[in-house]
This record gives sequence, structure tokens and C-alpha cells, in this order.
Amino acid sequence: MKKVYMDYAATTPVDKEVIDEMIPYFDKYYGNASSIHSFGRDAFDAGEKSREQISGLLSANADEIIFTSGGTESDNLAIKGAAYLNKKKRDSKGYHIITSEIEHPAVLETCKYLEKQGFNVKYLPVDKYGLIKTKDLEDAISKNTLLITIIFANNEIGTIEPMEEIGKIAKKHDVIFHTDAVQAVGKVPIDVKKLNIDLLSLSSHKIYGPKGVGALYIRKGVKLQTIAHGGGHEKGLRSSTHNTPGIVGLGKACELGMNRLKKDAAHMKNLRDVLIKEILKVEESYLNGHPEKRLVNNAHFRFTAIEGESLNLMLDDKGIAGATGSACSSKKLQASHVLLAIGLKPEEAHGSLRLSLGRMSTKEDVSYVTEVLPEVVNNLRKMSPLWNR
Amino acid sequence: MKKVYMDYAATTPVDKEVIDEMIPYFDKYYGNASSIHSFGRDAFDAGEKSREQISGLLSANADEIIFTSGGTESDNLAIKGAAYLNKKKRDSKGYHIITSEIEHPAVLETCKYLEKQGFNVKYLPVDKYGLIKTKDLEDAISKNTLLITIIFANNEIGTIEPMEEIGKIAKKHDVIFHTDAVQAVGKVPIDVKKLNIDLLSLSSHKIYGPKGVGALYIRKGVKLQTIAHGGGHEKGLRSSTHNTPGIVGLGKACELGMNRLKKDAAHMKNLRDVLIKEILKVEESYLNGHPEKRLVNNAHFRFTAIEGESLNLMLDDKGIAGATGSACSSKKLQASHVLLAIGLKPEEAHGSLRLSLGRMSTKEDVSYVTEVLPEVVNNLRKMSPLWNR
Repeated sequence: MKKVYMDYAATTPVDKEVIDEMIPYFDKYYGNASSIHSFGRDAFDAGEKSREQISGLLSANADEIIFTSGGTESDNLAIKGAAYLNKKKRDSKGYHIITSEIEHPAVLETCKYLEKQGFNVKYLPVDKYGLIKTKDLEDAISKNTLLITIIFANNEIGTIEPMEEIGKIAKKHDVIFHTDAVQAVGKVPIDVKKLNIDLLSLSSHKIYGPKGVGALYIRKGVKLQTIAHGGGHEKGLRSSTHNTPGIVGLGKACELGMNRLKKDAAHMKNLRDVLIKEILKVEESYLNGHPEKRLVNNAHFRFTAIEGESLNLMLDDKGIAGATGSACSSKKLQASHVLLAIGLKPEEAHGSLRLSLGRMSTKEDVSYVTEVLPEVVNNLRKMSPLWNR
Repeated sequence: MKKVYMDYAATTPVDKEVIDEMIPYFDKYYGNASSIHSFGRDAFDAGEKSREQISGLLSANADEIIFTSGGTESDNLAIKGAAYLNKKKRDSKGYHIITSEIEHPAVLETCKYLEKQGFNVKYLPVDKYGLIKTKDLEDAISKNTLLITIIFANNEIGTIEPMEEIGKIAKKHDVIFHTDAVQAVGKVPIDVKKLNIDLLSLSSHKIYGPKGVGALYIRKGVKLQTIAHGGGHEKGLRSSTHNTPGIVGLGKACELGMNRLKKDAAHMKNLRDVLIKEILKVEESYLNGHPEKRLVNNAHFRFTAIEGESLNLMLDDKGIAGATGSACSSKKLQASHVLLAIGLKPEEAHGSLRLSLGRMSTKEDVSYVTEVLPEVVNNLRKMSPLWNR
């Protein structure tokens, strides 16, 4: 059966060039990067090279990059690390974190946890496209605000938040600004200095690197409290033996991501625009998220009287891999918090489908989906009492 | 130059069979294990297979295994997770954790952090071989004791703690028993049920698996509070997209570890015994750790009037990779807390060398080291004012 992968927002295959770069670090340069002998130094040097490659993609400095196990850990470290450390420095109660209603669970659940620890968290609402209003942000800031954490580009609907304005507001009020840029990296040019970003989370497996590794950009001067206690790796911020093959892979993925950014983005945008145009020909189909301010690879639809879970299963039967919400939440039954936040009713949210493209996507992939998907929607609707009303 | 790796306790090369098993998961079966489509199901199934393989090595059940990014995270989750959750359940102050003075930093630093959070921690002393006394343990237990965490086999000197007795005491007093078994796994047969172990940390890269992945065994019924907030993976205990290639590699490494346990152990012990016998012929050289109750791959020496750091650098010049303390602490200047705990003076501790063997070690490796090391020690002593006293 033909197989079409359109779930690049959930994860990506590792690029062949990345795999080739990683392999020697499994059994040739296998030292522990903390060891002082030659095996260790080879691993250490590979890590430093990776820091250069990662920082290049973000216009950061190499010594502002620390390695983690992925986006979730980067988010946890950034948010808890900033909250815990800065809490000590403030003399008044009611320490305050500002985030949005449409964050990835790694941010949202961390914020909810911090609420239980006594922090106040403001969840900014979004408009029907998923954009926060910068005025809301400015209004929410008080002298007790420790941290602003706003997703760069939403993982479900692909809406790109106004990073530049948020950065300016954070800077003006001297508040630490973190962004989960897991979906944005490699698709949007990112200059952390220009955008006044203090902390940025990224994940390797969303950009054709291996799973199990990520990074956190920490602007020079920003202090965090560690959440992983141990040997004191990564300047004491993240204890754990370096995952050298993973780190090498992430570095190479970032280098490729930088070199191919324009080409990849144009390729994905072309395919996505065709996909959106064709799919919206389906009766009572709608695009979720912002029509322009969205990730080049993201198409997010809803179909009246369709259950997204069934739609996905039917598509899977035809060899097409799409998603209802994010993969992280895909086995949960609740309606997506992102779709509810943009004002969809639960039944509308449940009738949604995310198709996300990548470097390896082809015209043929798109043709197959635009051919199969309308049929599948029609077949499901034939069985639906909601449609034959 | 000849290269001899004798730092298997720091990390190991990935076994060829493990690499072969992992490779297809980079770009063929690359789905997100949380996705409901076929790509996701392939990844999910691979994870379940790995759980079987890991649990097999420990005589646990597959559903008692959760995946982490490595030993450090497993230790952090086990100790903080048990402490935080159980704190809520107790009605009196002074919650109590019992550990030893010779734990790995991942345990020790976590315990120190918990002390700052208001927990009481008892650090059990050890004898000159590095063994805790079970009577000390029994005496330290009170009704407020939440957790006992004792390393299975020490990462520096290789001493194997009396796990069976500790397990019995923990069970008798109904206290959760965690062990960092990172060094013991694959070298010592482990039956968590028989040993009454509730929580066991293991790391992939110490057993010829890839870096960046580990596991925590959690006995059915033992509850922990998560420390990684997010999508709710691993029954809500460890949010993060599955590192499927890493998980597959860890699983295979455990399967090999189980099948080869006797063979590997005999091989390492044979080589180690020759190594110890030959090296102890050096004037004023001593073995640290227990003569019998020690890991089959561990040889830990001290040499009067020698600085371990210089010794390692000179050995490195000859192509030999050894270690002073653990790799995690190798770039620190303090004397090893383990060696101080067994009663060595700081200068004795600084004169120590760990040589650790592995599956790939050969007779030739041992011959080369037994030939080169005495010369190097002699040369260093010639330069030492402490020796020519």
C-alpha cells in the first residue's frame, strides 16, 4: 500500500546526512565527554562543535546552548529553573508567570504544577486565529512578573505568535522571556538577539535529527536553577552524561536546517498551499489557524459532522498519516485545548485534522491526499446522523 | 599508537548488534510512539518490546519499566518522585531519607537538594571496603523514613552493597527501597523481586547500549510524583516523546546483557584478576574497594606519592584510557567523596586510578597496561619529592 507521511509536526525521519554523522559516535568515538583521556576529548569536541551548529541556527553564541533530552525537558528547565531561582530574589509574594492558553503541554502542565507550588500564572487568551494580543500581555505584567513564556509557533494550528513585539515588551519590563520554538526552528528564521528572547527550547526530532535530544538557549547572564541534580554537567544546569551521538545529530540537523531553511520553507509552503486549496473544496471544510501567520508546513482543517479520530483511522487505512491534535495528546479523549481556545465548540474541535509537511514531502504525497481525503470525508458523512440532518 | 580503553565504567561502545537494531528506527520506523497511525504504532510496539527485554534482565514485569534519558534522570525521578508524593501522605514533620556516603552524584546531589527542601537525610558511613553496615541502616529507620536509596555497586571502587539484607530491612519496615544499579546491571544477576527492590535505575550506555536513554524499574503499586511535566507519557511519570531508536537500543542491550551475563562476567573477571595481580606488584600499590565483593570489571588502585590526574594524563599519552574518579566528576579537583568515605587521606585519594574492563576488553589490553603502567608510575615517582623523601 502507498504510504504518505503527513505528520512532520509530530516527528520527522532522521536525515541521511545526520545519520551518517552520528554513526561513528556509537562505537568509534564512544568516550564519555567528561573523561579526560583521548576518547573523552573526542566526545567533548563533538559536543562543542554541535553547540556551534545549534547556535548558528539561532544567531546565538555557542556558550549559550545547553543540551537536554528534548523539548519537554528544555521547557521544564527553562520555566521551573527561572521560577525557582528568581523566586528567591524577589521580596514580595505572588510571583507571577505569564503564558498563553495555547501552549504545548510541556509548558502548560509545568505552569499548572508551579501554580500548585504557589506561583500565580496568567494564561493569556487568543483570538480566533490563535494569536495573543500584545496589549493583554502588557496589561498582565506586574512588578512580580518573573517570566513570560509564549510558544513561537503553535504545534497544532501552526499560528506564529508576535515574537518581536513580545520580546520588546519583555525587555521593556525586564522580565525573562522564554519561548517553546520546537515547531518554529528550521521553518522560520530565528535571531534570538533581535527578538530579545532569553530562553528558547528546541527539539532535535522535529528537524530531521534523532529523538531523545534537544537544547535550551540561555542568553548570557540569565540564571536558572537546575532541575536535574548530579554530576554537574552543562555548567551544573543539566547533570547527565552527554548523549554524544544524539548531540552530534542535533548539531548536524541544525546545520542542515540553517543551510536549507529557504529552500525547505519554499518547498513546504508550495505543497501546503496546494493542499489547503484543494482540501477546502470539500463542502463545509474550514482552515484552523491564521491564513498567513502560520508555519509553512502546517495545514489544519475542520470538517462539519466529522469525528477527527475516525477520520484519522480511515486515512491510516489508506496509508495516510495525519493527526487530530498533537501526538502528545493524541491518545486522550478531550477536545484540544488549543482549538477550544480559538473559540471552536467541542464538536468542531473533534472534527479537526492536522496535516503537516516536511523536507521529504512530495507533490505525489499531496496529490494522493487531495484525492483520498475528500472521499474519506464523504464516506464518513454518509454514516453520520449529524450530516444527514 | 596502540589504544587501550579501560574506562568501561564511564561508558561503553555500543555493541554492533545494538546499532544494527537501532538504525531502522532513525529513518524507516520513525513515527512518534504517541501517534495513532501505522508509523506511530510501529514505534509504540518497539517500545513495548524494549520493556520486555529490560524487564527480562531484572526479573521484573514489562509494565514496571519506564523510559528515561539515563541514570541521572532515573535517580532524580525515583528519589524526588518518592519523596514529594509520600510527603503529602505523612502527617508528621521530619520526613526522612536514608542513603550512603558513597552514592553517585545523581543520588547524592538529589538528596542534598531535598535537604534544602526540608527533608532529613541520613548518609550512612561505610567501612574501609566501602560497605554499609546493615545495623546502621536498621538503626537509622524511623516511622518518618520515606525512602532508602543505596547504590547497588559503587561506580568508583566497585564494591557491591548487601542488597538482599537491605531489601529485607526495607520490606520489614515498609520503606520504599531504591537502588542506583547503573554499574551493576549486566555484571551481576539481578532479581528485583527476590531482592525486594522497589525502584531501580539503569543506564543504557554502561551496558553497550546508546547514550541518552535509561530506565527506571518501578515495582507495581509504588507511586511516584512526576518531575517532567508535559504530554503525560509513561503513565504521566515522564513526559517526553519516546526516544524510539534509543529505547530499541537499550532493549537490545539488555537482551544481550542477559544472554551474555555469565560469559561476559567470567571474561571480565579473568582479565581483571590478572590486572590486579600484576599491578599490585608495583611497590606501595594498593587495591581500593572490597577484594571479593566487587564488580567483575573493576580494578581500583592507589599508588603512594602519585597524583592520579598526572598518572591518567601519562597513561593517555601511551594510549591508555583510565580514570581518577567517576567520569562525572573527573574535571573537578576535589578528592573523591567515595575514597574519603572509605577512610583514605586526601593525598591517598588523589593517588588513585580506576581501570574498568568490558565485553570488548582483551588479554592484549591487559598485557599492554601491565607493561606500561608500572613504568609510568616509576617515572612519575622519580619526579616526585614525596617519593624521594
